[in-house]
Amino acid sequence: MKDTILISEIFGPTIQGEGALIGQPTIFVRTGGCDYRCSWCDTLYAVESKYRHDWKPMVAEDVMAEIEKLSGGKPLMVTISGGNPAIQDCTELLQLGKERRYQFCIETQGSIAADWFADLDILTLSPKPPSSGMDTDWKKFDACISAAKGNPKLALKLVIFDDADYEYAQKAAAKYPDLPLYLQPGNHSTDSSIPADMDGLNARMRWLIDKATSDQWYNATILPQLHVQIWGNERGV
Amino acid sequence: MKDTILISEIFGPTIQGEGALIGQPTIFVRTGGCDYRCSWCDTLYAVESKYRHDWKPMVAEDVMAEIEKLSGGKPLMVTISGGNPAIQDCTELLQLGKERRYQFCIETQGSIAADWFADLDILTLSPKPPSSGMDTDWKKFDACISAAKGNPKLALKLVIFDDADYEYAQKAAAKYPDLPLYLQPGNHSTDSSIPADMDGLNARMRWLIDKATSDQWYNATILPQLHVQIWGNERGV
Repeated sequence: MKDTILISEIFGPTIQGEGALIGQPTIFVRTGGCDYRCSWCDTLYAVESKYRHDWKPMVAEDVMAEIEKLSGGKPLMVTISGGNPAIQDCTELLQLGKERRYQFCIETQGSIAADWFADLDILTLSPKPPSSGMDTDWKKFDACISAAKGNPKLALKLVIFDDADYEYAQKAAAKYPDLPLYLQPGNHSTDSSIPADMDGLNARMRWLIDKATSDQWYNATILPQLHVQIWGNERGV
Repeated sequence: MKDTILISEIFGPTIQGEGALIGQPTIFVRTGGCDYRCSWCDTLYAVESKYRHDWKPMVAEDVMAEIEKLSGGKPLMVTISGGNPAIQDCTELLQLGKERRYQFCIETQGSIAADWFADLDILTLSPKPPSSGMDTDWKKFDACISAAKGNPKLALKLVIFDDADYEYAQKAAAKYPDLPLYLQPGNHSTDSSIPADMDGLNARMRWLIDKATSDQWYNATILPQLHVQIWGNERGV
């Protein structure tokens, strides 16, 4: 039997709402399962094991067929997200996709290194700040960078809710001065059953811009989650 | 007497709200005066001649001193905007700033070429679509690209209000296939005396994303005006 990838959802094309590729058309492949449980996780349906029956084991050919169907067979950037996609084996998916000229990026917290990171076009590493309740193992984080073997473009994305997160972000940025750096105000408003708190989210964005520019942190790119601005907490967009 | 630049406002550091540098800390230098009068112009205070008494002629040293004061002397990207900054002589400003390791980008409609385009780091060309009421002179547009002499990174940014603008954008993109391409939903809600129509702006953003992705226009980056999302119609942010 062939290896499968555990899939929570595949949707798009839509635009990437965050980070280095913000605004770029992409298809999202969201895998199920995560080694973390961040306090403010906005995709619990792809993280908590109680949702595991919603996740579908799919062989790479079937995932690729769905991507091609959604994109009309025209290559574009595919974003593999999660959960933590690093716990899946995406080797074959990347191989199939690249043969057909699709590009691939993932976002991961950097807790698990996978050999197939070296086959990505973009690898966004997003270590989780104190407000998440998680601890960062920087040795494992470094192993993720090593696994990329210098092939994909790397990006460092840091979610910031409060002063403690901001300090964590400053230290992480200082530790990896060569990585393009993205700061993202944390989203406290992820309950899809109520409208997103745009006033609160924009207030945190303004706070972060003021703080970072006051500190002359000019090499940080500061971006909100655009999909929340545009669609609120809606899923599949 | 030294040459002066006509300045409408200098403010920041804040983040760039649009286009290729979205989210990046920058100081804005807005020049006064424009050869266009777009129907939906969102900075009439830097365009219409009735505001000309608000514009201050400043020598390059004084503009640079203000930039250094606002940035605390730490170099960053300076965005020269307008009005149409191409009608000013920014040669000396760029020379002074580059000596002090500042970077410079401008946005212009591409109607007037200036020799100092070749000294920029980024040149964003934003030809105006039919809804603006303006006509594009593509010879002059090409002269702007030539003036850059291959030095700055170029970007093509197209504002889209409606189907006619969308078609114009498609043609412009086809004419310049090598330029990184940014699509921006038009802002009909620029009256600073009333709150921005966020619902209307987000609806146009969703319309544009749907349309471009349905047309498999995957090399276009689609971004709203982030500063309007964050601050509404406030000035100086």
